[in-house]
Amino acid sequence: MNFASDNWAGAHPRIVEAVAGEAGRFGAAYGAAETDLRAAARFSEIFETAVSVFPVATGTAANALSMAALAMPGGFVFCHRESHSVEDECGAVEHLTGGARLYKLDGTAGKIAAADVAKAATGFDPASVHGGRPMAVSITQATEAGGVYSVAEIEAIAAAAHAAGLPLHMDGARFANALVAIDASPAEMTWRAGVDILSFGGTKNGCIGADAIVVFDTSRALDLPWLRMRTGHNFSKARFVSAQFEAYFADGLWLRMAGHARVMADLLRAGLDAAPHARQAWPTASNEVFAVLRRAEIASLREKGASFYDWHKPHGADLGLAPEEGLVRLVTSFATERSEIDAFLAHLPK
Amino acid sequence: MNFASDNWAGAHPRIVEAVAGEAGRFGAAYGAAETDLRAAARFSEIFETAVSVFPVATGTAANALSMAALAMPGGFVFCHRESHSVEDECGAVEHLTGGARLYKLDGTAGKIAAADVAKAATGFDPASVHGGRPMAVSITQATEAGGVYSVAEIEAIAAAAHAAGLPLHMDGARFANALVAIDASPAEMTWRAGVDILSFGGTKNGCIGADAIVVFDTSRALDLPWLRMRTGHNFSKARFVSAQFEAYFADGLWLRMAGHARVMADLLRAGLDAAPHARQAWPTASNEVFAVLRRAEIASLREKGASFYDWHKPHGADLGLAPEEGLVRLVTSFATERSEIDAFLAHLPK
Amino acid sequence: MNFASDNWAGAHPRIVEAVAGEAGRFGAAYGAAETDLRAAARFSEIFETAVSVFPVATGTAANALSMAALAMPGGFVFCHRESHSVEDECGAVEHLTGGARLYKLDGTAGKIAAADVAKAATGFDPASVHGGRPMAVSITQATEAGGVYSVAEIEAIAAAAHAAGLPLHMDGARFANALVAIDASPAEMTWRAGVDILSFGGTKNGCIGADAIVVFDTSRALDLPWLRMRTGHNFSKARFVSAQFEAYFADGLWLRMAGHARVMADLLRAGLDAAPHARQAWPTASNEVFAVLRRAEIASLREKGASFYDWHKPHGADLGLAPEEGLVRLVTSFATERSEIDAFLAHLPK
Amino acid sequence: MNFASDNWAGAHPRIVEAVAGEAGRFGAAYGAAETDLRAAARFSEIFETAVSVFPVATGTAANALSMAALAMPGGFVFCHRESHSVEDECGAVEHLTGGARLYKLDGTAGKIAAADVAKAATGFDPASVHGGRPMAVSITQATEAGGVYSVAEIEAIAAAAHAAGLPLHMDGARFANALVAIDASPAEMTWRAGVDILSFGGTKNGCIGADAIVVFDTSRALDLPWLRMRTGHNFSKARFVSAQFEAYFADGLWLRMAGHARVMADLLRAGLDAAPHARQAWPTASNEVFAVLRRAEIASLREKGASFYDWHKPHGADLGLAPEEGLVRLVTSFATERSEIDAFLAHLPK
Repeated sequence: MNFASDNWAGAHPRIVEAVAGEAGRFGAAYGAAETDLRAAARFSEIFETAVSVFPVATGTAANALSMAALAMPGGFVFCHRESHSVEDECGAVEHLTGGARLYKLDGTAGKIAAADVAKAATGFDPASVHGGRPMAVSITQATEAGGVYSVAEIEAIAAAAHAAGLPLHMDGARFANALVAIDASPAEMTWRAGVDILSFGGTKNGCIGADAIVVFDTSRALDLPWLRMRTGHNFSKARFVSAQFEAYFADGLWLRMAGHARVMADLLRAGLDAAPHARQAWPTASNEVFAVLRRAEIASLREKGASFYDWHKPHGADLGLAPEEGLVRLVTSFATERSEIDAFLAHLPK
Repeated sequence: MNFASDNWAGAHPRIVEAVAGEAGRFGAAYGAAETDLRAAARFSEIFETAVSVFPVATGTAANALSMAALAMPGGFVFCHRESHSVEDECGAVEHLTGGARLYKLDGTAGKIAAADVAKAATGFDPASVHGGRPMAVSITQATEAGGVYSVAEIEAIAAAAHAAGLPLHMDGARFANALVAIDASPAEMTWRAGVDILSFGGTKNGCIGADAIVVFDTSRALDLPWLRMRTGHNFSKARFVSAQFEAYFADGLWLRMAGHARVMADLLRAGLDAAPHARQAWPTASNEVFAVLRRAEIASLREKGASFYDWHKPHGADLGLAPEEGLVRLVTSFATERSEIDAFLAHLPK
Repeated sequence: MNFASDNWAGAHPRIVEAVAGEAGRFGAAYGAAETDLRAAARFSEIFETAVSVFPVATGTAANALSMAALAMPGGFVFCHRESHSVEDECGAVEHLTGGARLYKLDGTAGKIAAADVAKAATGFDPASVHGGRPMAVSITQATEAGGVYSVAEIEAIAAAAHAAGLPLHMDGARFANALVAIDASPAEMTWRAGVDILSFGGTKNGCIGADAIVVFDTSRALDLPWLRMRTGHNFSKARFVSAQFEAYFADGLWLRMAGHARVMADLLRAGLDAAPHARQAWPTASNEVFAVLRRAEIASLREKGASFYDWHKPHGADLGLAPEEGLVRLVTSFATERSEIDAFLAHLPK
Repeated sequence: MNFASDNWAGAHPRIVEAVAGEAGRFGAAYGAAETDLRAAARFSEIFETAVSVFPVATGTAANALSMAALAMPGGFVFCHRESHSVEDECGAVEHLTGGARLYKLDGTAGKIAAADVAKAATGFDPASVHGGRPMAVSITQATEAGGVYSVAEIEAIAAAAHAAGLPLHMDGARFANALVAIDASPAEMTWRAGVDILSFGGTKNGCIGADAIVVFDTSRALDLPWLRMRTGHNFSKARFVSAQFEAYFADGLWLRMAGHARVMADLLRAGLDAAPHARQAWPTASNEVFAVLRRAEIASLREKGASFYDWHKPHGADLGLAPEEGLVRLVTSFATERSEIDAFLAHLPK
């Protein structure tokens, strides 16, 4: 019963095979091997347009270097108050951009609203240098709180961003989980909806370590080779990351893995809805489920070996928690087994 | 005949096995899994002292973050003019330290001399802020030019550095290659000789991707978790790197791989010494050999499938190159086969 | 009727005289002239303890370099949501610290509470690097909203900061205005109350341009010469700033200028309290007065030549503004004349 | 006999008058006062083209922020090995650009050659990110070693820079001294010759403190308001700097001051040429004279109250110094008196 995080899961055998295959060969370093070129081409196929792809070590690096590519001195990035860049990256965006700031917007399930972007962007006096200036908008798909934007919502945010002259970044650490939640194509969920630059994550969805920056507005990609190199994110044996991406996309493996995680999460959601003394804290659509359980059950589940995190109440939310209740996060992945779900739900009192 | 670089080689099957084994399990993220703890403990065993270990994505990251850990505003790092940080890291040290500068020293085979460190360190007026101030010394072991410091040479440099109040960093991207060249223990070649912080590289010696900062003077390690996190180098699935390190150290695999590379390089060296129209450009002791060949042979070898880089003449060196001669770099690795060496040497005219 | 800002005022004749006197002499550059040494010594006298003093170009520089002197990677500075560093410095703190972040606390009249500092400081998990860590506390005295901390309040904040291991910075852009408001000595209002580092501003109180960082905990001052130099804040003709400080302190000129500004502000406050259709938006004690006036009067006053800024409602405040009312800021200075106050108040309808 | 530096001199009475005049008035802050607008317009008149002007605190700030305006990640600035940015700014360029590096070129009297710029710019492989890339060229006019570029020389360097796609920066800390040395107009010596951005210094030539960035290629100026603000270089009482510039340009005061310094330096040069036991170390044309004197005379002159700096031998220069000889720098300024020159020369043995 491991629901701690999708980054606690291992890696899919096909990903491992691809790495093993690469291990037996020589290949050019720093992204120039055939495997690298094939993987890069595959990204363009998957997204149905010519993209620039930059593998980096982590999702944090993908986010912060995306922002560095968009950086303007004095700039603000509009994003959700509980986004990864705000809460979990130790100031990486601020550091790697030379001091850009995150402008926090509210919204349920980690999602921001187009209207709030538009309003925030108009709150700056372009004639005054003191207060800084808008620089970019960043959304997470799926969000850290399990929310998933519809294509229409992304389009609306992109329209608001672009109307204010701002590029739109998407943190896709759980990109595949979002895709299978809304049944859109990669193109529909990104550049066709107005996304300019994407942190594309494979690590949480069955890879060993595979994160990349994908640039749709390739005029934004010109500095990225240098930005990446000078932060130590240009892998010498990049082909081992590329090989993972190639296997990830082959035969739709990535969507199957994310689809499995979603089915597992759906079972959890259904089980919580049916349980008399447990509930979903708020609706989610990805592989993350936030549950309100009685503290006694939380302790008892952990005693029985369940692994999951206590979660903090979202800013401004009213979850109607009773004194004896707690909030926990349950994350499924490609590696979650049906039996784990069943065991978990079986422990909830009837 | 692939002598392009040791980072063009693949990975050892035992490294791949370790990764595959990890793939089948859940494990805590961000370095808290049992595999991570075991690997960290193994580093302390290998170095015979309690060390702090920080896996990062690349050798460039290890170097630049080591310098960030030592950074002082206005600081200079004394290092060789042809060191990786100077020539190949796109300004990573300057960027991640917030503007530290590299002070270039000369020396044959990429090695600097203790006397030059001592002299450079005295060239600053402590009462004047304008010219900056010394901050650290960095040496590469083995060097980018195939040189290997003896333990005595490291001790002398460390003494000069410490006398000036400066910590000593070692770029060990080819640490194992140096170890087998001088037959020292890891402890003897580092902290016992006065090294304070080490970029430890496994990637060039048979790993998929395994680089780490190893801190001996652990008072220098306090900020590193934060420095690493905010540059996006804190792997969520860190245990896949740790697993590589564990396999790397097991049964002396790392030394066997480096030993093999050295034997292969020794054969190359011997073959060049014996060839009438070829020669070593300068003596080397690691898995890198720099050869002066006639341009005709260089072209012919490439036609026959040999892969290697043309090299630039070291600053200030006089290699006595005839007009028809060129300088090339030949690098061996754990994956170099005897037959490649034989084929290469067989193509040199008798 | 110029109430736009105290930095719209000119400079006191005695300040100009001091500069003129300096102009006729040679003197060592970069802070080594006799005038510099005298001024530095004067600071120690004024503060009744040995301090380190670093003149810089602006209050923004003083704040950001103070933070740079305290910087820790991943660090947060606790400060008021409407502090100058948050609202008016274009990200200077974030930039010059390499990415530190400002953690915004609420509070009336720009003042934060010791309890909120204590609470915020405990909201970090020291075992987790993701969320960053506390680094410093910064208060403004007098605040941007006209508030003035009592010595007891400063002591309480300092105690909370120090209990959490955090140094306390004071932004004293209006230091003298605060001093005359609470009738404390410079020492009482700073180091004796627990302030570790101070942005000391003379510019808004009758100087031409005279800002400095004053360090009480001189162990914090060691890097400042380098931090200041590499940001271009080490004046070659520093003695022209020192001369201003010397004149500023001579015969209590600084307190007389601030005292005059306070008297003028008190008259404004009294006049607003007495006016039937105007009021103070909130109580202030420094040379800043925030007034709620009817929009008709605001327009009419401007037509008659009054100069002042519209102001934004503080975050979360309820000023009970009627639709026909607006909020404005009125700032007095050493140069404000009684006749300006009288004229202003005379224009308010009876 | 004060020849220590032109930044040891005071300020011209007309500069002081201008400041005093400003002191008696209110005026808008942050560069929006009428004085600011007049001074900015004056710059455009002086340079015979519409320029953008940004006052900053020091020449170091002007240089480093100019580079920040031109910055590219991984970038190198080609400049002279003994330029101020290399030797005297404590890494300000590296810091404020986020890690740009200075690429040092040689040349006599602090001047670089167009051919060396062209050659250096071709030494980078645009397909490789490792070694960085060219970003800008910077020359100093007049140089730190007393050299002055002819207009033709500037044109040649600009042509080499622009051919390589690089903007040309001029460090004009002694701009007026250069102007009077070559009898060119400000326009001829800058944008008409190909200079894109200029550090314009008034401080060393009779101002209290007046340095500014002047941008000719105004497309390069778009980020500068933000770059300046976030480094604390946006003066609130900017009009006191503007007032200095206005007085500086009025009635050709700046050229008269620089002309006087030149006449004084010419007298020094002539005196040294005539002295049997002293000589110019190398020819100079600005207000700096480098003299080889016997150590006995150096000591004796100092005893008699002369003030000047020992100087270090330029890199690679052979000055033919005898063991009893030393190298010193003598700087004249607007404030140097004929009697000082006479006294100095009178002390040299006949």
